[in-house]
Amino acid sequence: MGDFSIGIDIGGTKIAAGIVNKTGEVFHRKVTPTPKETKMRVLELLKDIVSSYISIAEKERMHLIGIGIGSAGQINYKEGKILTGTDNIQDWNDVAISDYLSKYTDLPIFLDNDATTFAIAEHQLGSGKGMSDVVCLTLGTGIGGGIISGGNVIRGEWGGAAELGHITVNMDGPKCNCGSHGCVETYASGSGIANRMKERLHELDTTTNESAKTYFVENPDKLTSKEVFQWYHDGCPIADEVIDTAIKALSYGMITIIHTFNPSRIILGGGIVEDREWLIVKINDRLSNLGMHALVNPVDIQISKLGYDAGLIGAAYQSWIANK
Amino acid sequence: MGDFSIGIDIGGTKIAAGIVNKTGEVFHRKVTPTPKETKMRVLELLKDIVSSYISIAEKERMHLIGIGIGSAGQINYKEGKILTGTDNIQDWNDVAISDYLSKYTDLPIFLDNDATTFAIAEHQLGSGKGMSDVVCLTLGTGIGGGIISGGNVIRGEWGGAAELGHITVNMDGPKCNCGSHGCVETYASGSGIANRMKERLHELDTTTNESAKTYFVENPDKLTSKEVFQWYHDGCPIADEVIDTAIKALSYGMITIIHTFNPSRIILGGGIVEDREWLIVKINDRLSNLGMHALVNPVDIQISKLGYDAGLIGAAYQSWIANK
Repeated sequence: MGDFSIGIDIGGTKIAAGIVNKTGEVFHRKVTPTPKETKMRVLELLKDIVSSYISIAEKERMHLIGIGIGSAGQINYKEGKILTGTDNIQDWNDVAISDYLSKYTDLPIFLDNDATTFAIAEHQLGSGKGMSDVVCLTLGTGIGGGIISGGNVIRGEWGGAAELGHITVNMDGPKCNCGSHGCVETYASGSGIANRMKERLHELDTTTNESAKTYFVENPDKLTSKEVFQWYHDGCPIADEVIDTAIKALSYGMITIIHTFNPSRIILGGGIVEDREWLIVKINDRLSNLGMHALVNPVDIQISKLGYDAGLIGAAYQSWIANK
Repeated sequence: MGDFSIGIDIGGTKIAAGIVNKTGEVFHRKVTPTPKETKMRVLELLKDIVSSYISIAEKERMHLIGIGIGSAGQINYKEGKILTGTDNIQDWNDVAISDYLSKYTDLPIFLDNDATTFAIAEHQLGSGKGMSDVVCLTLGTGIGGGIISGGNVIRGEWGGAAELGHITVNMDGPKCNCGSHGCVETYASGSGIANRMKERLHELDTTTNESAKTYFVENPDKLTSKEVFQWYHDGCPIADEVIDTAIKALSYGMITIIHTFNPSRIILGGGIVEDREWLIVKINDRLSNLGMHALVNPVDIQISKLGYDAGLIGAAYQSWIANK
C-alpha cells in the first residue's frame, strides 16, 4: 500500500486533517472547528487527532512515516514550535507542538508555516510540479510566502524565511504591523487594501457612494477588501487608485522575488486572487515593462488550482520531503 | 596532495587566476590586464591560462577536478554563458565560455556571477564558514548579491538569481538601468550615490562648496561616491541626506533579505563599505527598529575580511561544491 503521512492544517476557524498517501489522496478526512479558548485545548485536540489516526493506520495496515502540520504564524521549523500564531486562537504563541506530541508518538513530526506547506503542495502535486524553482504567495488578510529554490524548500536558519508579505516595496510607505514600513502586505493584502481605503473614505464621491460612505465612516472597522473591490468595479475613482496601488505593489514585490529567485513560475493563492484572473492580466501588464527581461519575461504567473485539501496535503508531504 | 581546481576571476580591469586547493591556498597566481578589444581576445586569453595550468598541474602531479570562473554580469550558470557582462570589455555579451573552453579540456567548467563566487568564498573560507544561511552583498559601482540558503547556493532556474541590487525599496523611486524603479542599487551603489547627488548639485551650499560645485556642475559625469562621502564628512547637509538615504535604502533592502532568507549573517564587500565600519553601525541602528524582531535581531552584519584572492578562490571552489 506504500507509505502514508498524517497531515494537519491548523487554521483560525477550522483544523483539517487526514491520512495522505504520496499521490495526494486523503483518507479519513476530519474537519474540526478550531478551539478558541486556550492553546492547551488545541494541543489536546491535536493529540486526539494523531492518536485516532495512529489507531486507524494500525487497524488498516497503513504504514505511517510521519506527521506533518501546517499553521499560520511564525514557525520555528527546527524546534517544531509556533512562535507567534493567529489571533484567532487565544494565547497561540510560543507553542512547542512537536515537543508536546512527541510524548504520545515516536513518528517524526514536522511543523511549518501554512504558506510553505501550500508551496510544497503546489510543487509536489499542483502547477509547480516538475519545476525546481517556484515561488508561492498566499494573498488573504495578510500575505504569506513559500519558496522552492533549486528543488529545495527555503526555510532559513530556523524556519523563519519566506515572509514574502514583508518584503519592502516602499521604504517611505505606511507602517506595517511587522515593524517595518511599506511592506507589500500594507498595500496588497486584504487588510492592506482595506486600510489604504480607510485613509481615503473622506474622499469618496458623495453622489455615488453616500450610503456606503456614511456607513463606513461611522464603522471603518467593518470595511474589508470586498467592498473596495466592489467599489472598484462600480467605477469609484478612489477605489480604483487603491486597487491600482495594490497591483503596483504586488508587481514590484514580484520584481524583487524574480530578481532574487529566478523562478519559472509564481503561484498565487488566497481570497484576494480567487476568481480574479483579471488581476493576473494587470500584473503581467506591469511586469512586461519592469526589471531584467531575461529574468522577468519567462516567468509565468498563475492562480492556484489546488482545491480544498491543499493545506493538509502540503502539511503531510513534509514527511516525504524530509526523508528524501 | 589532494584535489585542485583552476580558479579564474574575470574583472573589468584584470583577470586573476590560480590553482587552488581545498583549504583556499593559491598556487601559480597570474594576474593579466583584461583585454578590452573583443570577446575573442578574452576567450583566447582564458584558453591560454587554462592550458598553461593544465600543463603545470601535470608536471607537478596536482590532480585537477575542474575549472571555476567568476565574472561580472548576468550569467547562465547551466549553459556556462555570459548573457550580459561588463561594459569594460567590448562586446562582452552572449559569450559561451564553457562551450569554447570545453574544446580544449575535458575538465568540468563552472561559470557564475562574481557576487555568487564571493558568497561561496565567504561561506567556505570566510566569515560565513560553518553557517548554513548567509547572504552577501557586493557594494561597488553596482550592487551584486550571493546567497547561501540551507547550505546551498541559490541560483534559480538558469542561474540568474541573487540580483540583490535589484530588489525594490521604493516603487515610486528613480528609474534603474535594470528597467525597474527604486532598486536598492539606485540609492546605495557607487553610481546610485553619485546619481542622487548629481540631481542635487544645484542645492550645494555655495559658501562651503563653491569650487566643488562649480567643477561638478560643469562636469557632472566626473562625480563619484568618493566626493559624496568626502562632502558628507565635511558636514555638507545635501551629501548627508544622500548618504542617509543610501543607508536607509540598504537597511530596507536588508529587511527584505532577512524576511526572505532568515540568514544568520549578512556579509558586505566592495568599495562602498571598505574601511567604513561606521556604515554598519548606522545600518544596525536602523535595523533595530524595523521588521520582525525574531528574524532581524539575531542577524549579524559584517564587512568582508577576505583578501585580494577571494574572487579567484570562490570561483575555483565551484568545482568542489558541484561535486559534493
